[in-house]
Amino acid sequence: MTTGTDRAAVEKILARAAAEGRSSLTAPEGRAVCEAYGIATPQERLAATAAEAVAQAEEIGLPVVLKIVSPDILHKTEAGGVLVGLRSVEEVAEGFATILANAKAYNANAQILGVQVQQMLTSGQEVIIGSVSDQTFGKVVAFGLGGVLVEVLKDVTFRLAPTSTEEALSMVDGIAAAEILNGVRGAEAVDKAALAGIIHRLGQLVTDFPQLAEVDLNPVLATASGATAVDVRILVDPEAAKEPLRFTQEEILASMTRIMKPSAIAVIGASAEAGKIGNSVMKNLVNGGYAGEIHPINPKASEILDRKAYASIADVPGEIDVAVFAIPAKFVPAALEEAGAKGVAGAILIPSGFGETGNIALQDEVVAIARKHGVRVLGPNIYGYYYTPENLSATFCTPYDVKGGVALSSQSGGIGMAILGFSRSAKMGVSSIVGVGNKADIDEDDLLTFFEQDDNTQLIAMHLEDLKDGRSFAETAKRVSLKKPVVVLKAGRTSQGAKAASSHTGALAGDDKVYDDILRQSGVIRAPGLNDMLEYARGIPLLPTPKGENVVIITGAGGSGVLLSDACVDNGLSLMEIPGDLDEAFRKFIPPFGAAGNPVDITGGEPPSTYRNTIALGLSDERVHSLILGYWHTIVTPPMVFAELVVDVVEEFRRKGIHKPVVASLSGDVEVEEASDHLYANGIVAYPYTTEKPVAVLGAKYRWARSAGRL
Amino acid sequence: MTTGTDRAAVEKILARAAAEGRSSLTAPEGRAVCEAYGIATPQERLAATAAEAVAQAEEIGLPVVLKIVSPDILHKTEAGGVLVGLRSVEEVAEGFATILANAKAYNANAQILGVQVQQMLTSGQEVIIGSVSDQTFGKVVAFGLGGVLVEVLKDVTFRLAPTSTEEALSMVDGIAAAEILNGVRGAEAVDKAALAGIIHRLGQLVTDFPQLAEVDLNPVLATASGATAVDVRILVDPEAAKEPLRFTQEEILASMTRIMKPSAIAVIGASAEAGKIGNSVMKNLVNGGYAGEIHPINPKASEILDRKAYASIADVPGEIDVAVFAIPAKFVPAALEEAGAKGVAGAILIPSGFGETGNIALQDEVVAIARKHGVRVLGPNIYGYYYTPENLSATFCTPYDVKGGVALSSQSGGIGMAILGFSRSAKMGVSSIVGVGNKADIDEDDLLTFFEQDDNTQLIAMHLEDLKDGRSFAETAKRVSLKKPVVVLKAGRTSQGAKAASSHTGALAGDDKVYDDILRQSGVIRAPGLNDMLEYARGIPLLPTPKGENVVIITGAGGSGVLLSDACVDNGLSLMEIPGDLDEAFRKFIPPFGAAGNPVDITGGEPPSTYRNTIALGLSDERVHSLILGYWHTIVTPPMVFAELVVDVVEEFRRKGIHKPVVASLSGDVEVEEASDHLYANGIVAYPYTTEKPVAVLGAKYRWARSAGRL
Repeated sequence: MTTGTDRAAVEKILARAAAEGRSSLTAPEGRAVCEAYGIATPQERLAATAAEAVAQAEEIGLPVVLKIVSPDILHKTEAGGVLVGLRSVEEVAEGFATILANAKAYNANAQILGVQVQQMLTSGQEVIIGSVSDQTFGKVVAFGLGGVLVEVLKDVTFRLAPTSTEEALSMVDGIAAAEILNGVRGAEAVDKAALAGIIHRLGQLVTDFPQLAEVDLNPVLATASGATAVDVRILVDPEAAKEPLRFTQEEILASMTRIMKPSAIAVIGASAEAGKIGNSVMKNLVNGGYAGEIHPINPKASEILDRKAYASIADVPGEIDVAVFAIPAKFVPAALEEAGAKGVAGAILIPSGFGETGNIALQDEVVAIARKHGVRVLGPNIYGYYYTPENLSATFCTPYDVKGGVALSSQSGGIGMAILGFSRSAKMGVSSIVGVGNKADIDEDDLLTFFEQDDNTQLIAMHLEDLKDGRSFAETAKRVSLKKPVVVLKAGRTSQGAKAASSHTGALAGDDKVYDDILRQSGVIRAPGLNDMLEYARGIPLLPTPKGENVVIITGAGGSGVLLSDACVDNGLSLMEIPGDLDEAFRKFIPPFGAAGNPVDITGGEPPSTYRNTIALGLSDERVHSLILGYWHTIVTPPMVFAELVVDVVEEFRRKGIHKPVVASLSGDVEVEEASDHLYANGIVAYPYTTEKPVAVLGAKYRWARSAGRL
Repeated sequence: MTTGTDRAAVEKILARAAAEGRSSLTAPEGRAVCEAYGIATPQERLAATAAEAVAQAEEIGLPVVLKIVSPDILHKTEAGGVLVGLRSVEEVAEGFATILANAKAYNANAQILGVQVQQMLTSGQEVIIGSVSDQTFGKVVAFGLGGVLVEVLKDVTFRLAPTSTEEALSMVDGIAAAEILNGVRGAEAVDKAALAGIIHRLGQLVTDFPQLAEVDLNPVLATASGATAVDVRILVDPEAAKEPLRFTQEEILASMTRIMKPSAIAVIGASAEAGKIGNSVMKNLVNGGYAGEIHPINPKASEILDRKAYASIADVPGEIDVAVFAIPAKFVPAALEEAGAKGVAGAILIPSGFGETGNIALQDEVVAIARKHGVRVLGPNIYGYYYTPENLSATFCTPYDVKGGVALSSQSGGIGMAILGFSRSAKMGVSSIVGVGNKADIDEDDLLTFFEQDDNTQLIAMHLEDLKDGRSFAETAKRVSLKKPVVVLKAGRTSQGAKAASSHTGALAGDDKVYDDILRQSGVIRAPGLNDMLEYARGIPLLPTPKGENVVIITGAGGSGVLLSDACVDNGLSLMEIPGDLDEAFRKFIPPFGAAGNPVDITGGEPPSTYRNTIALGLSDERVHSLILGYWHTIVTPPMVFAELVVDVVEEFRRKGIHKPVVASLSGDVEVEEASDHLYANGIVAYPYTTEKPVAVLGAKYRWARSAGRL
């Protein structure tokens, strides 16, 4: 809990604004709200006499601003009722008189309550701190440098509100121009703790009062000894306080476990006719080797694929966990009523013809039926789902049987097919592939919650175009990613455009930057593209978690070494500064004209033993945490010889209990393709003809290891 | 020629500085040099009396700065000899008296020459304009916003000097924060033409006086009506005026044509012993099908591979164009003397043991021998070179026989092997692969000049780590890239670090940004990584040059459409705003719940005819310039059916003379790999499991088309 907050003061102000039907607070109200939460605003006093004004100005500190206070004078400036930059007590005294005279001249009958004496801040670094109610993430706080930097260069960062003060400090340090706050060109460093304090307090304020739809503190002036919100703009909207429906973790897990590990499945619309979706689903369940009960539901058949068919799910004896729907959309509501009554945990809605074709009413109807019966809905408009530990292929696509630790989901059927094809082609070990389609109900949160505790899953990779409840996703992902890497391909990242927004912060938030910052805050590894997501999913689980940041490149080709170094910088990896003794040790194995240092350039014409010795040295030295290998095809060390020796030496160290990530880039004639496959099959992430990909996968592993606190 | 320049004035100042052995100019000298080239600096006058000072201040415009001028007072400020911000004639008159009094008090015997009255610029946008002598590119001009923007965010751009005023204007508009110069937050737009004028004039100045090693105009204050260089700092260094040796285009072409299309080749160190480099080279020449004469040189053999062997190249009857050296480094000088005497055009130095192992003296000796005989040297430390139109594989690697239009070069043997393997694996049509190794002589300029006029080459792709003569490369690439795409993978782009530099501009230039800006200025397509270079090389020549910017995505998977749109933004492609009539026309072919607009989402379950009709519409409508296809694997339109229909419809339009770039992303099960291959083989750049790659290749084609003025 943030100390020194005065909730009652804010409540009073908001009650008055609500009573008056206002959608924004006045400037003094805004300042009062800030002050109630310990956010400093310029000091101000009300003076009845010139002498009082002078005393107050001296108390606040010069220079000051004087403003007429009168319920009858709305346009103060027009009335000559504002004087800025009064630098001496004489000027203040004179100014007080001038303002009163001006006000009387403007409106002789105006009731004069006095003259406001306000602190005038003249120096400090301008920053902007704000909060918006994001439609995906809810309350979000923003921080950026003020003025042209934030306007032109969009140098701004976001977090879910409320933030801890530590998180708030990471925002202050996280903008591109953060160095400015440390003082450049002889300027003093600003009080970053004070800025972080404002961010923290603002986050608390909008969390306590969710009807504060948008808050702009712009500018905040930061100096070496504090920070003050000079202008405050607050928009109020009761709608901004609404929260989406959420299930508890226990509820989710109960349903998802029955869905992913069902004892009995009904296929509604099962068919004996080849080419029909209801036939493909039946075949895949049966041929895929699913060991539970499979009940075809079809009023016109007595048996399908040797299984007894029922006219209705209600007729099936015993419990049913999952109903797969392979019937046209319009028949779904009635069938779902029956399935609900039967007590299924999950309805897998393969058919399209719902929200995606504009038929939102039908989709809403289906969700309402599901809610009534406590049924969770997957889809509609999906290919289905796979869960390989149960040999479960509840889909009209082909079964998948390479078991392994990667769980994948896609919001789009097309991307789902790419996942399937890539996985099959790369022989990627998969625990699950799930199509979430329209996400009428089950979404990524539910999947994360299940895969989190699923021992068959080591990594979760998700393609998504939007999040129904970004805040819930972020919170779940933050928890899950501490245990298992969560890779996300967020599509539509460049096409959102700016949202209509009435505040400065709101306008800045209409950007992929909000997703990017919050996904990172949640420990998610964001993949820049489809292929990256697939390669990360494939490679990350194979690599052991590194124990530190020291990466060493060992290369037979100097040219590859340079490109691999570039890739390290691109992927945020640190090339180890090789200590003298280790450098000496490397030098013993390489020709005199080879280069130690990092990359370790063993040169091109070396025999297998040089690769072996240097790799063994890198694996054995405790100060080295990861290896990147650059192979150059020569007659002396052909590709498969290289691949086999690498597997051999890595295995040798694995047997000794030494596990370090090793990735490899292979340059050479076509034989390097087979050599790369051999390496990959043995847990060494290797690619031919690219120096970028192996380093990108290692970089992704490091991003996870860092955010999960493993380093 | 820049008008209004006074070379004589600059010569005089530089002569004086040189005579005094100075490496920098004084501030007044710097201002005078600027003024001589029409670069405005603050106005100044010398006043002998207070009345004169007042008159001058009124002429210059208030406020002004007053400074004592005395050969006996070096520390003006200490002596109370400087007053700034004098805003009225009274203050000027008073200030004049004060300064004189201070000076006398400081040093009663000082000779007073008068008081300098200097214009004091108080407003305007700070920018920095500068010039450095880059070790790669020679004279380079820089432009950035002043203050923290350039210091913290490194928002700066570079060009080869001199620039046209048009190029200079592209710099002003080319920084990230360019919008600031157009006026933001109510500020007036600055006079960008005046800034461009200063850049242009500075470029001319340092070109005319190459001994001006570094020039900082920092800050330049830009207002709505002009720009003034407030502070000028100039470093002088006679070394900065040195230019590298250059061959003429005719000289290069004469040698390179004999090297790439030789009538006779001698292999010095030819061997009959398998495993020896001299044996591999002989075999590759013979077995590769090279039709010219091949002369093995080996004092110990009478015949090698059925060819008569000679003890020395001198013994071979007739002319020899190329000598391939397959002997140890230490024997090269003597053999090169003989080859030079024999009149060879090119010496292909395969051996290592030269500069790359620290043996620079040997390499210099070899170059000197080559220069003496007019021999051009390729290498040393290379795998050799290929030129497929002549069936020429002068290398110890395997021969390459897929002929085509792509010429590639690499500075590293390892990368050369990756080029070879990738090319073979992808069946890429190649005209040439060249290893340039240590680049003791022949470099990328020479290759560009040859490939420019080589009808067998349509695209040139180069891996390079540095440029011997970046200016010459940039100028050559600018010319060549107008005719043929030039793709460059610049390695070492992230590791350069900041160079030791004494000027502000110099410090900023120690960065990959100089390479990046100048390569772009030269029309070069820069590949971000090795695999990108290879994919660009493979794909760009297959795609016809687009006739305009209107790109249309046609997709069976909405999910692919979103990712393809992301990729378009990432690659600078413009999604066409589909006109109403065309939208109507698309809608006729797609289901009512499909989405026209762009992407055109034909939805997933559609038959081949829907793909065909929409693609045909895109090809036939003249307003559409390029197509990106997103395929989604379904039973209704299987992968090969899709691939064949696309090839068919594209062919149909090609026969009608309609050539538009078509690229495709295929999502589906493993069959999409074969389908992608079929598409690629027919000139449609297609990839499975990635939405990024096909769009990246199309984007690279567009970058070339734009810079070559084809759009």
